Amino acid sequence: MCFENYFPIWGQLLPHQQRLLQDSLTFQTVKKGAILHGGSSDCAGLVLIRAGQLRALVYSEEGREITIYRLFGGDLCLFCAPCVIRSIQFDVTIQAEKDTEFWSIPAGIYQQLMAQSAVVANYTNELMASRFTEVMSRMEQFMWQRLDQRVAAFLLQEASIEGTCTLQITHEAIANHLGSHREVITRTLRDFQSEGMVKLSRGRVTILNREMLEMLRA
Amino acid sequence: MCFENYFPIWGQLLPHQQRLLQDSLTFQTVKKGAILHGGSSDCAGLVLIRAGQLRALVYSEEGREITIYRLFGGDLCLFCAPCVIRSIQFDVTIQAEKDTEFWSIPAGIYQQLMAQSAVVANYTNELMASRFTEVMSRMEQFMWQRLDQRVAAFLLQEASIEGTCTLQITHEAIANHLGSHREVITRTLRDFQSEGMVKLSRGRVTILNREMLEMLRA
Repeated sequence: MCFENYFPIWGQLLPHQQRLLQDSLTFQTVKKGAILHGGSSDCAGLVLIRAGQLRALVYSEEGREITIYRLFGGDLCLFCAPCVIRSIQFDVTIQAEKDTEFWSIPAGIYQQLMAQSAVVANYTNELMASRFTEVMSRMEQFMWQRLDQRVAAFLLQEASIEGTCTLQITHEAIANHLGSHREVITRTLRDFQSEGMVKLSRGRVTILNREMLEMLRA
Repeated sequence: MCFENYFPIWGQLLPHQQRLLQDSLTFQTVKKGAILHGGSSDCAGLVLIRAGQLRALVYSEEGREITIYRLFGGDLCLFCAPCVIRSIQFDVTIQAEKDTEFWSIPAGIYQQLMAQSAVVANYTNELMASRFTEVMSRMEQFMWQRLDQRVAAFLLQEASIEGTCTLQITHEAIANHLGSHREVITRTLRDFQSEGMVKLSRGRVTILNREMLEMLRA
C-alpha cells in the first residue's frame, strides 16, 4: 500500500500537484513513546500514518498531561505542523503510543497546495473540524463528568482500540491520559474492583463487567 | 459601511462570486438575549456582525451553561451554520449578548463559494482555527485553574470588553458564563470583596484592584 491509497484526495489533485507532493514525501518510523511534535517552534511536517497510533496531549503548568485525541492508521496529523494555518495559536504535543510508520509532508509544500487548491483547503477544513469535534467532546467530559465516569469511558475506549478486555496499562498512564494523579486513579480503580467491574493486577486492568462500566459512563 | 468593508476577502473574490454573495445577503437585527443558533438541525446562515456582541455557549445535561468564546463587530460566526463543514459534529448555541446587527449569508451559497475558491476555503480554515484556539484556551482554564482564578479572568475580560471597571452583571450571569452555580460565584465574589479586590452592589461588580485580580488570574 502506498501514499496514494492513504491520502483520500489524491485523485482530485492535478498531475503537477501529485508530483510536487510525491517528490517531497519522506517515509519514517518512530518507536513507541517518541515525541513527533512538541513546542510551537517545531513545524517540520504533516504526518500521514501508515500504521501505528499517536496521541495529542496538552500539559498543565505543573506538568500534568491530558490526552485530547488519538490518531490511527490512515489519519493525517494536521497539528504535527500547526504552522500551516496561521490562526492555530495553541500547541499540542504529539506522541507515538505504538511504534508508528508514516509519511511526512513538508509544511511548506502542504501550504502551497492549500493555497492553490480548494480541494486541499476544504479537506484541511474537514480534518480540523474532526479534531475540533473530539476536543469539544473531551472538554464537555471534563466540565460535566465526574472522574469515575471519565475513567470508565477511558477503559471502554482502550478495550475498543485494543480489541481486548485485558488492558496492559499502568495507573500512572491512565492518570496521564485523564489529567489526574496516579493515587486518585488507583483509588477509583479499587472502587471499580470492589464493585466487580474490573480486576487489577500488576500493569494490567481486566474488564469483567462491560455493561456496568457503560452504565457508569453514560 | 457596507458588507464589502466587513468581509476581509471580498477583494479576492471573482466578480461573479461577489455578485452571488451580494445577492444572497439579508441584513438583520436581533435584541440582546436572542438565540441566533441552537440545536443541530438549525443551519440557516453564517452571520457577519456589523455591530453588537454574540457568545457561543454549551450546555450540560442539567442545563448549566458555559461560554466558550465571544464574537464582536467584524467577526464572522461560522458556527451559526455548522452544516457548511460536514465534520463539525458538535453543537454550540449562539446568543446575542447585546443588540446585534448582522448580515446573514445562506449556508448553501457559502458552501458553493468554499468549493469553488481556495481563498474562501482557506479563510474558513483560519476562522475555525481562531475559534479552536479560543476553545483550547478555555479548556485549559477549565482543566487546570481554580474557580477563583477563572472568576478573576472573567471580570478582567469583561472590564476590557466594556471599557469600564463598573460591570453591570449579576452573579447568575457570571455563573452561566463559567459553568458554575450562582451560590458558588457569590461566595467567591464575597471573598474578593473582603480582600478589597471588588465592591459588590445589586446587579453590579466594581473592580477596585485590577493588579490583585491579575495576580490571582496568572
